[in-house]
Amino acid sequence: MQAYDDANIFAKILRGEIPSTKVYEDEHCLAFMDIMPQVEGHVLVIAKAPSRTLLDADPDALSALMPRVQRIGRAAVAALKADGLTLMQFSEAPAGQTVFHLHFHLLPRHEGVPMRSHAGPMAEPAALEAIAGRIRAELA
Amino acid sequence: MQAYDDANIFAKILRGEIPSTKVYEDEHCLAFMDIMPQVEGHVLVIAKAPSRTLLDADPDALSALMPRVQRIGRAAVAALKADGLTLMQFSEAPAGQTVFHLHFHLLPRHEGVPMRSHAGPMAEPAALEAIAGRIRAELA
Repeated sequence: MQAYDDANIFAKILRGEIPSTKVYEDEHCLAFMDIMPQVEGHVLVIAKAPSRTLLDADPDALSALMPRVQRIGRAAVAALKADGLTLMQFSEAPAGQTVFHLHFHLLPRHEGVPMRSHAGPMAEPAALEAIAGRIRAELA
Repeated sequence: MQAYDDANIFAKILRGEIPSTKVYEDEHCLAFMDIMPQVEGHVLVIAKAPSRTLLDADPDALSALMPRVQRIGRAAVAALKADGLTLMQFSEAPAGQTVFHLHFHLLPRHEGVPMRSHAGPMAEPAALEAIAGRIRAELA
């Protein structure tokens, strides 16, 4: 496995060099809307501690991250009035990873609604912001 | 969301009422081979603390669980000489959950090898035990 490279797009989002539609931020993590959502309400939770994948992460950073993933997941489920939640995390390209900064996909699920491919269309920024606002309201 | 029901098959495995091919156990978690593996080396990590999904779990239990998920994932990747790792966790049936006790799927991935459907064939017990032995050796 390769070393962490801070030229990745999520590191740029963390540094504020690229905008994102944020739903939550604290000292351990940043959560924002996936711009190619596989379902409505598709949120990414990224660690602030630099790591490439789950495999090279600081175990203490994972311990801090997961209750936050849970809290953001609960808020996304509530905001989307979803029936469930799919959590996915990909380590390295053969597992599906495309951005090499540790991140968790949170996908609110509704009965009978399949997930789209991750290579799907870009969402409208205004539509993402509207959903993000509903998730932020649940977190408030 | 419904309440936790300890008649589920993973609770029976935890109580020793049903056998499993174990790879790791401590006070927080049990890890064992999925009997319908979607890839070779498909491991399930379940929390000992009773919860139905990620959404109703004790946040402290999640904090304890994730470094263990990481450690077991690293061992599975090493044992299978894999190129990556897919982590999946399903909360409620519309998200893909079929056993209602919190569990994480760890799937060692190889370049060009797709995941099979979860409704695939049962693995041979001897084949599962052979892989479990390799993962246990990495953990030792």
